[in-house]
Amino acid sequence: MTTGTPRHVRRTATGPTAGLADGYAQANLIAVPQDWAYEVLLFAQRNPKPCPVLNVTDPGSPRTALAPDADLRRDLPRYRVWRDGELTAEPTDATAHWRDDLVAFLIGCSFTFESALARAGVPLRHVDQGRNVPMYVTDRECRPAGRLHGPMVVSMRYVPADLVEQAREITARMPAVHGAPVHVGDPSALGVKDLDQPDFGDATTPHDGDVPMFWACGVTPQAAVMASAPPFAITHAPGHMFVTDIRDDTYRV
Amino acid sequence: MTTGTPRHVRRTATGPTAGLADGYAQANLIAVPQDWAYEVLLFAQRNPKPCPVLNVTDPGSPRTALAPDADLRRDLPRYRVWRDGELTAEPTDATAHWRDDLVAFLIGCSFTFESALARAGVPLRHVDQGRNVPMYVTDRECRPAGRLHGPMVVSMRYVPADLVEQAREITARMPAVHGAPVHVGDPSALGVKDLDQPDFGDATTPHDGDVPMFWACGVTPQAAVMASAPPFAITHAPGHMFVTDIRDDTYRV
Repeated sequence: MTTGTPRHVRRTATGPTAGLADGYAQANLIAVPQDWAYEVLLFAQRNPKPCPVLNVTDPGSPRTALAPDADLRRDLPRYRVWRDGELTAEPTDATAHWRDDLVAFLIGCSFTFESALARAGVPLRHVDQGRNVPMYVTDRECRPAGRLHGPMVVSMRYVPADLVEQAREITARMPAVHGAPVHVGDPSALGVKDLDQPDFGDATTPHDGDVPMFWACGVTPQAAVMASAPPFAITHAPGHMFVTDIRDDTYRV
Repeated sequence: MTTGTPRHVRRTATGPTAGLADGYAQANLIAVPQDWAYEVLLFAQRNPKPCPVLNVTDPGSPRTALAPDADLRRDLPRYRVWRDGELTAEPTDATAHWRDDLVAFLIGCSFTFESALARAGVPLRHVDQGRNVPMYVTDRECRPAGRLHGPMVVSMRYVPADLVEQAREITARMPAVHGAPVHVGDPSALGVKDLDQPDFGDATTPHDGDVPMFWACGVTPQAAVMASAPPFAITHAPGHMFVTDIRDDTYRV
């Protein structure tokens, strides 16, 4: 794996962060105006598989306890800016878009358990192939919270059949970064029609004998933004995560 | 143990609920006006040991998915009504005090793991002695959330020394109902001066060789109400819990 310190990655990464800052937790970002913060937090409480909350900022603050020297407005490789549920910009620095009433939620990311998978000998096809992890919108509706609703998004990793059980066990022990897979095997069980056409990220190529494993994904709040159209939100761009200073094994139970 | 169906207990219990509805989860209650709901939910997110959220109601609704036929306004044995942080009433029915803007939070209760402890042969001194579990305000401050702050409250159980490790392991597997103890042994490590003078509930009598074990407690939000003085809140009376329809082993991981 290419690696680097979290601080170095935060300052230099320009693409997806899978495989970077080996051994450190990564996080999804969604920042919303304060009058939507309760609904985001409740949505997360009601949907803990896709939305395990690691940290919540004070209104307007770009600081997080997950990396005290970081600035959430500029230390992710790429952002998405949403107005009324529409994607309006994808900047590499969100400082010009940030508002004093924004509350930012940092949500566990499955990239966090990839070091543990790699150590156990589970190949990471997207990392090996130099691609972003593929993500899919499922037909499973999340439990709504006030004005916020939408479908669950999943990330998919092809895993050799004889390593599926091990991958399940390793990830089950890390519920704060999505935990056990929500499904293994048939994509149609999640309403996913074509694995080669992900809704976010890049398609990856399976090896013979690979089985698709699906984990709940922290892009789910972005699907909720699209479905629910809050007036404003800033998120990370899928796969372009916030790299924290927290060791990944902190989230192992 | 005295037992009974959850519905029967909800309709008939008049005292503490430890030992009742064997095999079903019990929950702490705190209901606050809607403009305090975000801070309660954030306080819980930041303090998951004392405040593991099981369910949040819609504003004004006395209904919860934890027991669809229950009415949160009258199905607990005893309530506490708080104004500006002061206890103003302790009714057995809170219907007359309920407001349309209240959001109710149901928080995991350690009574939920008592069936598992009993099955493993761990004696429950408070149940055997016909008393409420003793609870203590500690010197550990919770992480604040906006206007909400206060110390952690713990429940205490005397456990025979040779069963302490087993009790720790059993409860560690149930994080949604407070999980592993926060301390075992010396009360002064938590700033607790006298185990015979609990801040809530009743003192219990140890047997020779018993060790005090302390678990984070869902009365913590009441300590936060006292410290932070929101204009209004309704909680359960300590030990007088909401008995849910959810099997306790649902919360075992």
